[in-house]
Amino acid sequence: MSEELITKGAEMHRLASQLYPICRSLTGNGVRQTLAILQQQGLDISVHEVASGTPAFDWYIPEEWNVDEAYIEDSKGNRIVDFTTHNLHLLGYSEPVNRTISLAELQPHLYSLPEQPDAIPYVTSYYHRRWGFCLTHRQRETLDEGQYRVVIKSQLKPGSMTYGELIIPGESPDEILISTYVCHPSMANNELSGPVVTTFLAKWLNQLPSRRYTYRIVFLPETIGSIYYISQHLASLKKNVKAGFVVTCIGDERTYSYLPSRQENTLADRVAKHVLKHLDSEVDYYSYLDRGSDERQYCSPGVDLPVCSVMRSKYGTYPEYHTSLDDLNLVTSDGLLGGFNVLKSCLLLLEHNTRYQASVCCEPQLGRRGLYPTISSKDSANHVQDMMNLLAYADGSLDLIGIGDKINAYAGNLLPIVEKLVYEGLLLKESS
Amino acid sequence: MSEELITKGAEMHRLASQLYPICRSLTGNGVRQTLAILQQQGLDISVHEVASGTPAFDWYIPEEWNVDEAYIEDSKGNRIVDFTTHNLHLLGYSEPVNRTISLAELQPHLYSLPEQPDAIPYVTSYYHRRWGFCLTHRQRETLDEGQYRVVIKSQLKPGSMTYGELIIPGESPDEILISTYVCHPSMANNELSGPVVTTFLAKWLNQLPSRRYTYRIVFLPETIGSIYYISQHLASLKKNVKAGFVVTCIGDERTYSYLPSRQENTLADRVAKHVLKHLDSEVDYYSYLDRGSDERQYCSPGVDLPVCSVMRSKYGTYPEYHTSLDDLNLVTSDGLLGGFNVLKSCLLLLEHNTRYQASVCCEPQLGRRGLYPTISSKDSANHVQDMMNLLAYADGSLDLIGIGDKINAYAGNLLPIVEKLVYEGLLLKESS
Amino acid sequence: MSEELITKGAEMHRLASQLYPICRSLTGNGVRQTLAILQQQGLDISVHEVASGTPAFDWYIPEEWNVDEAYIEDSKGNRIVDFTTHNLHLLGYSEPVNRTISLAELQPHLYSLPEQPDAIPYVTSYYHRRWGFCLTHRQRETLDEGQYRVVIKSQLKPGSMTYGELIIPGESPDEILISTYVCHPSMANNELSGPVVTTFLAKWLNQLPSRRYTYRIVFLPETIGSIYYISQHLASLKKNVKAGFVVTCIGDERTYSYLPSRQENTLADRVAKHVLKHLDSEVDYYSYLDRGSDERQYCSPGVDLPVCSVMRSKYGTYPEYHTSLDDLNLVTSDGLLGGFNVLKSCLLLLEHNTRYQASVCCEPQLGRRGLYPTISSKDSANHVQDMMNLLAYADGSLDLIGIGDKINAYAGNLLPIVEKLVYEGLLLKESS
Repeated sequence: MSEELITKGAEMHRLASQLYPICRSLTGNGVRQTLAILQQQGLDISVHEVASGTPAFDWYIPEEWNVDEAYIEDSKGNRIVDFTTHNLHLLGYSEPVNRTISLAELQPHLYSLPEQPDAIPYVTSYYHRRWGFCLTHRQRETLDEGQYRVVIKSQLKPGSMTYGELIIPGESPDEILISTYVCHPSMANNELSGPVVTTFLAKWLNQLPSRRYTYRIVFLPETIGSIYYISQHLASLKKNVKAGFVVTCIGDERTYSYLPSRQENTLADRVAKHVLKHLDSEVDYYSYLDRGSDERQYCSPGVDLPVCSVMRSKYGTYPEYHTSLDDLNLVTSDGLLGGFNVLKSCLLLLEHNTRYQASVCCEPQLGRRGLYPTISSKDSANHVQDMMNLLAYADGSLDLIGIGDKINAYAGNLLPIVEKLVYEGLLLKESS
Repeated sequence: MSEELITKGAEMHRLASQLYPICRSLTGNGVRQTLAILQQQGLDISVHEVASGTPAFDWYIPEEWNVDEAYIEDSKGNRIVDFTTHNLHLLGYSEPVNRTISLAELQPHLYSLPEQPDAIPYVTSYYHRRWGFCLTHRQRETLDEGQYRVVIKSQLKPGSMTYGELIIPGESPDEILISTYVCHPSMANNELSGPVVTTFLAKWLNQLPSRRYTYRIVFLPETIGSIYYISQHLASLKKNVKAGFVVTCIGDERTYSYLPSRQENTLADRVAKHVLKHLDSEVDYYSYLDRGSDERQYCSPGVDLPVCSVMRSKYGTYPEYHTSLDDLNLVTSDGLLGGFNVLKSCLLLLEHNTRYQASVCCEPQLGRRGLYPTISSKDSANHVQDMMNLLAYADGSLDLIGIGDKINAYAGNLLPIVEKLVYEGLLLKESS
Repeated sequence: MSEELITKGAEMHRLASQLYPICRSLTGNGVRQTLAILQQQGLDISVHEVASGTPAFDWYIPEEWNVDEAYIEDSKGNRIVDFTTHNLHLLGYSEPVNRTISLAELQPHLYSLPEQPDAIPYVTSYYHRRWGFCLTHRQRETLDEGQYRVVIKSQLKPGSMTYGELIIPGESPDEILISTYVCHPSMANNELSGPVVTTFLAKWLNQLPSRRYTYRIVFLPETIGSIYYISQHLASLKKNVKAGFVVTCIGDERTYSYLPSRQENTLADRVAKHVLKHLDSEVDYYSYLDRGSDERQYCSPGVDLPVCSVMRSKYGTYPEYHTSLDDLNLVTSDGLLGGFNVLKSCLLLLEHNTRYQASVCCEPQLGRRGLYPTISSKDSANHVQDMMNLLAYADGSLDLIGIGDKINAYAGNLLPIVEKLVYEGLLLKESS
């Protein structure tokens, strides 16, 4: 691996570490702090605030939630569970409380996982007023009978929902949508990997000398954020978005995962499947029935966007999911880098994917153009075979991904061949 | 199983028992008696008579056949084979005879099955004049040399072919065709199960408060009956029939069977395959090349009706087929009930099968409508998942069966969900 | 096998033997001699000459090459390698040379196969001026140090490229293209089998009382020949050719092979796959990615002809390929006859392949027309079943090959049934 790539992996992990302690939720200052840190990466992210109660299709923007402090004190005055230690300790959207109660009264407000006794679970109650604390089951079992003081100094009141939007313009008004979410507290694969990898994709796109597509990159609270965003941009999204990706759970090292769009074979799906097929790694292929993130909204009937999801270990499938064990040991530099590279490959192919047409009838005479390698090796043989096959299928009906699928070659490896053949006038690029 | 269902199974078996002794053939009084008994079930079946010699496409209505008595008497005057004992003893469409002949002269007129020595075979000769007797091979082997008196008092002469037709009107002129046949003598699976199950389907349809489809239910002699019927109604059948079923061999307990229409994926095929897939029973799937009943006519080129066949043990595949062993022990209350239920499920789904369109963009907020169950169990989880999946695929392009196929859910189980969602205004039913 | 067929196999092998010694190349007198011998088979092949330097799409006709003599003499004056012994000894398109050189100087001009020490390899250098000799590796290893006289009296200069064309007219201007090549020196499967089998197909077509299709049969130098031919006839080929076959490697006994057209399911592909499927022999199915002969030109983008290849052991796959071991022991009478028969079956099916429509609604009454066999056997049962199935699928949408595929019957076996049914008026042939 190149020094540059190792550095990029490390930088991503560093950004994840910086974001990790922040208490993010659907709304609140954690989202604002997160977006501010992402802006510091040199990205011109515009930050939007949407007032609580604003309607969005079938939904309303919820009240804003902020937390000053939250803890449980035992009868001796020890803070045995404290939000400042780990923000997962507090049930998301907990209402304020300040009482001294018995263990029996406390128990219904406690959440733990008997099967994972060392994990603090991630629990929220966005649409039903509750308060609660999450803790390891091991700790819960040590709790004595007796009185406990529970303090939650939170504000749950009309405010606004915050999201970020970054438009990176290209030559065409046609857009690639990249959507990730910034509403999870201290967990790493789900979900710091998404915003971190998205940030580095944006930085990479920014520095390209030119772009064919315009990139619409959004940092949203999950579900309500994408619903609101779609409600505001439906017509233009439907008109412009040619492919899109929900970026989530993309930082561990275990596997790659693919979850199709509802329509199953859109441009986004085709490029993702092509890249993953030619990846020398394990890939788990899911069905749209396994969906669980914002593709639920982007692909819903009437929205119908060509949006799929390329992940590493998919939400809901790995043991650390939605617990404190989903941390920065699970998400690694290499894991993030692998996810980044796969999505970058998808974008790169999309930038160059078009239909090609051979310009001469019958096979061209490659020899007199020096397009046969002078030294023959297995690699060069493959290269020549790819070149001949590419010309054989360049009938103007298949795009580069389609040709790659047909001739069992990675379209990324066909790009330099295409360049040569276009230069030699043997291949014509679709004009439009 | 509910008391009501047990009763229905028993009633069907009782009706089969009542019809069993009658000697049915392509034509003759047996068919008339059978239709009269079916009318007594409260069905307004109209009975039609078609004169012998009437042309029907490439065919003519055959002469009418009736039998007064038929027996073989040995030299001692014992009736060793007698039509009154079992009507299979007489070869169908036997011409009259009254002779005393030697065993050697008799043998070419005897039919038995060496491999099934206790079975009386079912043999007919509709289009070639013959006479003959069928008997068990065991009995045949006991016949002594000597003289035998053979008496067949039958009439084979111009008369008419009889069939029954029942139209149960619905809101739409679109029709579901149900076709069964009433031309087999004392055999049970093939074929009393067909007319019996069809009769009970008709009774069930009759008592529905309303019907979307008009039901065209015909009780015909096989082959010549359906050919004649099609010849008389071709244009209207082609115009109106949206799905149809040949009902035959639907009373034993061994398996279920499906035989597609020639076009293989008509509405009838889709609903049948969907119901059978979600049945917790063995199903044998056949090809149209295995056809053998009236789908041969309904699906013939130029007729092209969407007619398939849902059966229990298919004709020609079970050992008792076309012998006296196909009796009311083979066909049971449970067997008939199973067949009835599968076809009823098909009709029920057809009644409710339409395209649905989600009415809101993005996922609706089910929580505030109380559409999430308050107590969570595995069943309720499936229910919620089915609801979400149904909404996710309700894009107006798939009908309910198609959605069920897509989301791996039985469309019958989706019906109550659809009802709730339509009531809540979250789902729109296709208007037309 | 019939006497006639044994004779035909032997005649083909005799023709191959007659052609075997001739030194064929892309151009030169060997091609002219070959075409003259094929004309002697009673075929009205027109011989065309195309001047060197004539452009053809991206190519030019090369210079003409002829050889008077070529040999290597050792220091004792022995001709140790001699073109007159085997024309593979001379590298194809060798330029003239007449020198005495050391073994060290000679070695870069020698070609042999260490893995096949008894084979003389086939090597050419059409587009790069070179001289060289090919010999067995066993002989090469015996060469002593010392001086060698190398003599090649060849002419490599502007002349012309020769090809043959035979048009056998039919009732329709629609054409079947048969393309084979005449540019290989003394090798048998690749490539005398192609011109020999093609010659006998032409003879068979010639003697047919009538032909539906016009047959365009070309004997070309590979690659440049087909490129030139296409360049001269592109519009008419695209308009008229309904199916075509590249005939090559069709004379050994090991297997049959199929290589599809680029479009994969043209009429040519359908008939070839149908015939091969019903052949009681092993068949290797290749992909268009395995192409290697003139289908590369016929199927290239913009040419897009429906041309596939039916072979016995495919070029590049058998050990004797492109060596002196590919001789008349490898290619046999039986091998040639098998190849001939498969292609003849394809042509025969194409001649009779059309859409059929049952003329009566519902099943016809075959009995009264005597179309049921009077004696029943397994064969006759299959025959009746095929007849019923054929009628059941004769809806005017499927051609005979399509019906055969649908009913799992060889269309060749359906032809006599079709004839009977057409005669009886039960089946109508598509008029156009």
